[in-house]
Amino acid sequence: MDIALQRGTGRERAVYRQISDHIRLEVAGGRLEAGDRLPPIRNLARDLGVNRDTVALAYEELVNAGIAVSTVGRGTFVARANAAPSAEDFHPVLSPLTERLLSFERARPQFGSTANAVPMHSIVPDQSLYPADEFRRVLNRVLQQSGPELLLYGSPQGHLGLRETLAERLQREGIDTSANGILLCHGASQGISLGLRLFAQAGDTVAVEEPTYNNVLAAAHGLGFKIAPVPMREAGLDLDALDRILARPEVKVLYTIPTFHNPLGSTTSVDHRRRLLEIAARHRKPVIEDGYETDLRFSGRAVPSLAALDRTGLVLHLFSFSKSLFPGARVGAITAHGRLIEALLALKQATDLSDALPLQAALAEFAASGAYDRHLGRVRRVLRERCDALLDALAREMPDGTHWTQPDGGLQLWVELPEEIETRDLLSDAAVAGVFFAPGFQFNHDGRSSNCLRLTFAMAEPEALRAGVAALARVIVERLEGKPRMDRVQI
Amino acid sequence: MDIALQRGTGRERAVYRQISDHIRLEVAGGRLEAGDRLPPIRNLARDLGVNRDTVALAYEELVNAGIAVSTVGRGTFVARANAAPSAEDFHPVLSPLTERLLSFERARPQFGSTANAVPMHSIVPDQSLYPADEFRRVLNRVLQQSGPELLLYGSPQGHLGLRETLAERLQREGIDTSANGILLCHGASQGISLGLRLFAQAGDTVAVEEPTYNNVLAAAHGLGFKIAPVPMREAGLDLDALDRILARPEVKVLYTIPTFHNPLGSTTSVDHRRRLLEIAARHRKPVIEDGYETDLRFSGRAVPSLAALDRTGLVLHLFSFSKSLFPGARVGAITAHGRLIEALLALKQATDLSDALPLQAALAEFAASGAYDRHLGRVRRVLRERCDALLDALAREMPDGTHWTQPDGGLQLWVELPEEIETRDLLSDAAVAGVFFAPGFQFNHDGRSSNCLRLTFAMAEPEALRAGVAALARVIVERLEGKPRMDRVQI
Repeated sequence: MDIALQRGTGRERAVYRQISDHIRLEVAGGRLEAGDRLPPIRNLARDLGVNRDTVALAYEELVNAGIAVSTVGRGTFVARANAAPSAEDFHPVLSPLTERLLSFERARPQFGSTANAVPMHSIVPDQSLYPADEFRRVLNRVLQQSGPELLLYGSPQGHLGLRETLAERLQREGIDTSANGILLCHGASQGISLGLRLFAQAGDTVAVEEPTYNNVLAAAHGLGFKIAPVPMREAGLDLDALDRILARPEVKVLYTIPTFHNPLGSTTSVDHRRRLLEIAARHRKPVIEDGYETDLRFSGRAVPSLAALDRTGLVLHLFSFSKSLFPGARVGAITAHGRLIEALLALKQATDLSDALPLQAALAEFAASGAYDRHLGRVRRVLRERCDALLDALAREMPDGTHWTQPDGGLQLWVELPEEIETRDLLSDAAVAGVFFAPGFQFNHDGRSSNCLRLTFAMAEPEALRAGVAALARVIVERLEGKPRMDRVQI
Repeated sequence: MDIALQRGTGRERAVYRQISDHIRLEVAGGRLEAGDRLPPIRNLARDLGVNRDTVALAYEELVNAGIAVSTVGRGTFVARANAAPSAEDFHPVLSPLTERLLSFERARPQFGSTANAVPMHSIVPDQSLYPADEFRRVLNRVLQQSGPELLLYGSPQGHLGLRETLAERLQREGIDTSANGILLCHGASQGISLGLRLFAQAGDTVAVEEPTYNNVLAAAHGLGFKIAPVPMREAGLDLDALDRILARPEVKVLYTIPTFHNPLGSTTSVDHRRRLLEIAARHRKPVIEDGYETDLRFSGRAVPSLAALDRTGLVLHLFSFSKSLFPGARVGAITAHGRLIEALLALKQATDLSDALPLQAALAEFAASGAYDRHLGRVRRVLRERCDALLDALAREMPDGTHWTQPDGGLQLWVELPEEIETRDLLSDAAVAGVFFAPGFQFNHDGRSSNCLRLTFAMAEPEALRAGVAALARVIVERLEGKPRMDRVQI
């Protein structure tokens, strides 16, 4: 990129503005198009003979103006143009809740291509393990057998055969349910929204663990719920804090992940669960139990779910195929009691009528035939091996003062670094060093800084996990030793 | 059913209570099971030697207690049992919004099997017209070609290929958009919820036509929006009323169906559309245009959509495959401008992360190959024939003082009866006579009574439509002549 900079007259625009204005004109004139990559900061700085920070500032200004986008470890790109040139005429007033949700979403770190970094940031099961071909054949068969039936609107409750199969599985885990006590939904994530909306409306408060699954925070922000964080301890959420929080009348419901917690990876004991239920029952507050990874236990003995221990009907249990099989079917399930099912049906229908039956019907067949259990057996072995490799690497590489959880299942664990480190600040260096991780701040309800991070062993094989941990450890050690950052990428 | 009734002692329970208690015990003892049909009122009354009203009262009591359910024209059945016997311990407090939605849902008429009645009540496209086999083969092929890719989480924006194909189609209709200006969603119904939530939050008001699509009312109730009804006239919504309503600051957005209106079946002129846009632009209020049946025009010339006429970016346009192809893919699309897309993405992600890619990918291929257009050609011919048959039958059969709309496309039309008739009260007689229709009250925001009804020609063939209209006309004429109802079914 050739930019004729004006300098030394004392009247010219700041150099960073000259750079950003030049790029603005190139975009406006169509010489740079959406998706084009801007030169790496270091190269442009060298070519123009300016400081890297000057170029970084120019790029930051373009990003803030919506003209460019930056992704960790990939660089800066020309943003997509506005679809309508005329859209400038109309400045729609978004609802304050939508604005709040947008701010929350914008704070999420953006990760680029995983080609040059070990992907330990995102809980997406490894696609190389998906039984894609077997599922495709089942889907084709059920569509062939059913004809157009499966292309009608389904009941808002979802495909009966899948509900029957799930009811049987859940019963075997000790949960008192039936096909009528289950509502199928669009992934456990839709189940979270529907479940929260049963009990809470804008202005109400929902209790969640902290840290917790960041999409629960997004759902709550978008729905206008206030959040009461219950601190996570080693044994699970702080029961005394829960007791105080559920006593507050404005707190309508608790969302909790007792098994293979996200982001912690930890699992609570039966005793902790019984005490949690006792507290909820005493305050007559319902509990949404997210069992999204329950099927992924690879060591230790199964702990009965809250729903299995519950004798009063206050637990809604969420199940999902997204982590244990693949996310692309977008099928989850809520188990609930009595009139809660009727209310969930009404909410589901008012939200999007019903789900697509073909994928539900195929999952029913896939699960009933034993193919899902065979897949689970295979995946559990792979995950155990990956988790062991990750734990070994952490023990070998991480500096003193670092701690981590030891999951018995699921796809993630939690690392606590020395207090002086803000893990968000490590992202760029880690990306350059070759590893992506999920910084802890995004699991806090207020986005406050965190010296923790989540690592997943979902996507990478043992060797890559070892390389990723080595890279991460290097970055941490350098930060602890106060070394300057080598090649900072703007994010 | 054999019930030993006690009578004449003066101390026994009321006869209707003896009947309902007997049935309660049969259900509790498992001798009657969920789904079992109770004897028709007239038969049981005859067998027991009691008045029909006595049996009707007993059944009503069982329905109110949740032990039985009644459906129009089908009879009374044992209700599904509570999934959990323990659920009685816990009486969850639902949010007031959820309670409000439940009341709304409970007011919907329940229709039984369509085996003995012409189904003119529900806008579900006729499954005998679905290109089910062709779609299945396309789906199987795209899954085979893609491997596991399509089973990953998709982008919250949806499958790129389908967005490109839809963008091209919408551009041909004069809408200024691109693949980046489209968000795919879970049917147009999810698009409605997301679109409304962009601008309104609980306590705000949304403007809708009256009558309007009843699921928009459900969505608004569930989200806590107040409703400002804009009366529908022959030419479309009342523009003067719209002007007054959009002037109110608490009214955040207008939802409208200018083409093949639901429930009216009518289409507005270009002039009406321009004036509507002018009013919305003057008040700087966004417009959600539901184009859910636009592809089903079978006569007359296409009228440019609001989105095509809009030059300011204030229109969000909804598209759906549910009525023009089949509903079971649950795929719709929102077209919007500028930062509205970013906000929709955030809402979609916070609601259910993303949609299932396999069905979107198959639709992309199906539409791009020309198969969708071939299907539209076929369906439009069938619908035109059915609509003509329906209009002919109405002209032949309906009594004086009855009026109806003449649709140029879509699946429904609107019939206005003499004012003294409340169409909800006709449902039972019509079901017995052999026809189902959608009574008008459910399309009013406050559920107030209506002398109108919606008839669809989606599901029945010409001969059945003629028989249905004849049956409906008989019931109306009898009501107008004050004849007693012959065989009333309790609903």
